[in-house]
Amino acid sequence: MSDKVALLVAGSWGTALATVLAANHPQVHMWTRNPGQAEEINLKHTNDHYLPGIVLPDNIVATTSMEEAVTGAKAVVIVAPSSGMREVSRSLKAYWKEDMLCVHATKGFETETMKRMSTVIAEELGCDEGRIVVLSGPSHAEEVVRHCPTTVVVASQSEKEAVRAQDLFMNNDFRVYTNRDLVGVELAGALKNIIALGAGMSDGLGYGDNAKAALITRGIAEISRIGQELGANPMTFAGLAGIGDLVVTATSQHSRNWRAGSMLGQGCPLQEVLDSMGMVVEGIRTTQAAYSIATKLGVQMPITDQIYHVLFQGRSPRDAVEALMGRDPKAELEKITQETWEQWHT
Amino acid sequence: MSDKVALLVAGSWGTALATVLAANHPQVHMWTRNPGQAEEINLKHTNDHYLPGIVLPDNIVATTSMEEAVTGAKAVVIVAPSSGMREVSRSLKAYWKEDMLCVHATKGFETETMKRMSTVIAEELGCDEGRIVVLSGPSHAEEVVRHCPTTVVVASQSEKEAVRAQDLFMNNDFRVYTNRDLVGVELAGALKNIIALGAGMSDGLGYGDNAKAALITRGIAEISRIGQELGANPMTFAGLAGIGDLVVTATSQHSRNWRAGSMLGQGCPLQEVLDSMGMVVEGIRTTQAAYSIATKLGVQMPITDQIYHVLFQGRSPRDAVEALMGRDPKAELEKITQETWEQWHT
Repeated sequence: MSDKVALLVAGSWGTALATVLAANHPQVHMWTRNPGQAEEINLKHTNDHYLPGIVLPDNIVATTSMEEAVTGAKAVVIVAPSSGMREVSRSLKAYWKEDMLCVHATKGFETETMKRMSTVIAEELGCDEGRIVVLSGPSHAEEVVRHCPTTVVVASQSEKEAVRAQDLFMNNDFRVYTNRDLVGVELAGALKNIIALGAGMSDGLGYGDNAKAALITRGIAEISRIGQELGANPMTFAGLAGIGDLVVTATSQHSRNWRAGSMLGQGCPLQEVLDSMGMVVEGIRTTQAAYSIATKLGVQMPITDQIYHVLFQGRSPRDAVEALMGRDPKAELEKITQETWEQWHT
Repeated sequence: MSDKVALLVAGSWGTALATVLAANHPQVHMWTRNPGQAEEINLKHTNDHYLPGIVLPDNIVATTSMEEAVTGAKAVVIVAPSSGMREVSRSLKAYWKEDMLCVHATKGFETETMKRMSTVIAEELGCDEGRIVVLSGPSHAEEVVRHCPTTVVVASQSEKEAVRAQDLFMNNDFRVYTNRDLVGVELAGALKNIIALGAGMSDGLGYGDNAKAALITRGIAEISRIGQELGANPMTFAGLAGIGDLVVTATSQHSRNWRAGSMLGQGCPLQEVLDSMGMVVEGIRTTQAAYSIATKLGVQMPITDQIYHVLFQGRSPRDAVEALMGRDPKAELEKITQETWEQWHT
């Protein structure tokens, strides 16, 4: 089989994953639409706009030709922004072969349709969604390129494809677990941004570690509740793509979602927050989508509800926290979880 | 029913819980062995050694007489150090009545026997373990006394007792969830200290957020694995007493376990770490206990194994991380979890 691996496109996370692949495989071909960026990668071995100060391995080569990047590759890794995923997949289609492994590492939904990324890719490639693998987990790009130990999960409905992806990426700095729950891993990666917004709000309000840890824990409980309704395994949300990624996002000032939440918590109006960010805050769109799905399905998502009211109905963050703390007394575990365990246990 | 609540003893967490109770009930009677401390609490309304700078509510009164503290109380809350739990419970016995609610908020095991706290209390009071409630969760004492929003779990084999405890503590700053999994909540509170040690080591080695988030996530996976063998519900470990408390402990420099781990990661020998701490590092004893139980039961605990080797067999922290990253490729979810879900899902 070919030694060639293709990677589309050259953002910061894509470039970081290219360095992982370059440690494992003789040739990594990156596709970018930007000729200046391709030249920079090929001649200077840097991608300074996305990963300032990092020297890339020589065996990463860049091209603006999709044909050149993909033809003869054994695997294609797609790390397009969620808004560009459909178009990139459509460009890939002409060179895509059925035996190629296809992994994506993009978080979020398609804006207009709220479809998951693997659905979008499968639709454009004209293949079964079971052929697609998602890679996710707690992973700042800057740490991955500096070889800090990092652990991720690859999920596919096909165990064979998940194991192929594990084999493609795994090395001593980059540990890869498999999971069969594609839906859960994709939902966790997107929905956790709602909770990261909430964690930022809590910090912006000047609340402490207790409040943030409670938000993270109860937030995971509620996104796993809606995930389960949508076909995911709730245990996936307690794993790397859920809790793991949320811990990194909710405790890092580098996260756009955390930052936007923190400004809201300090009293900035939403429009001002959006203007100052200058880029999409994924968690805001996701809150809107989750709120409407939860309402339709009758799933309780108290934290998401409150964040929705702060974002779109002018509720103050402090009132939102009061509403959360003042809810009726509850049990920690879902009734079904409790009953299943009791049955099994006795 | 009486309005009186008794609380034993006046450490920092006990005093913080007394302030919560004082907001809900007319009288909180604290028992302490130390007459000077009792006088300070009664005359100056402070407990400066444990909570410097905090003024306590007037309706907290202290006494050195167990009889005075407990007689006529509707509830007794025990927050003794784990090493003193048996003795305090024994002193309580003479004044204990069957209809009193009994809650404890102590993490850890009895050193010699490795028994859980509720077992120790029930043995000394001569009652069923089902009568005891444990309170746990992400909760720095300093934040609780400053009325920062805090969320905890109360667990008891008896739902009635758990709901009584929820009712005793809950208010708008202090949200309380119930759980029926007493064993899981007690195990999570103790075992999470192993992972907090590991998180400290990772930080001491200069690894980043990716490594720490992975340790937290995979750490919860392995302590829930041994918890399940010991009769706990694995979902409890994804809750407030598990993930929630671990997030607070592993990301706070105030945690003794994190601090000890961090010194080890920086290359300090164990004895030097212990000397410099001047007090018990719970996670060290717990690592030893968990290692021997896991070995006996044949449960895989790779992180605990490596921490054990660093603590007691002279392995360097860097070699321990390499051993963890270099393990065979694995699936993220336990086989049984995966299979149960697939069965239920299809």
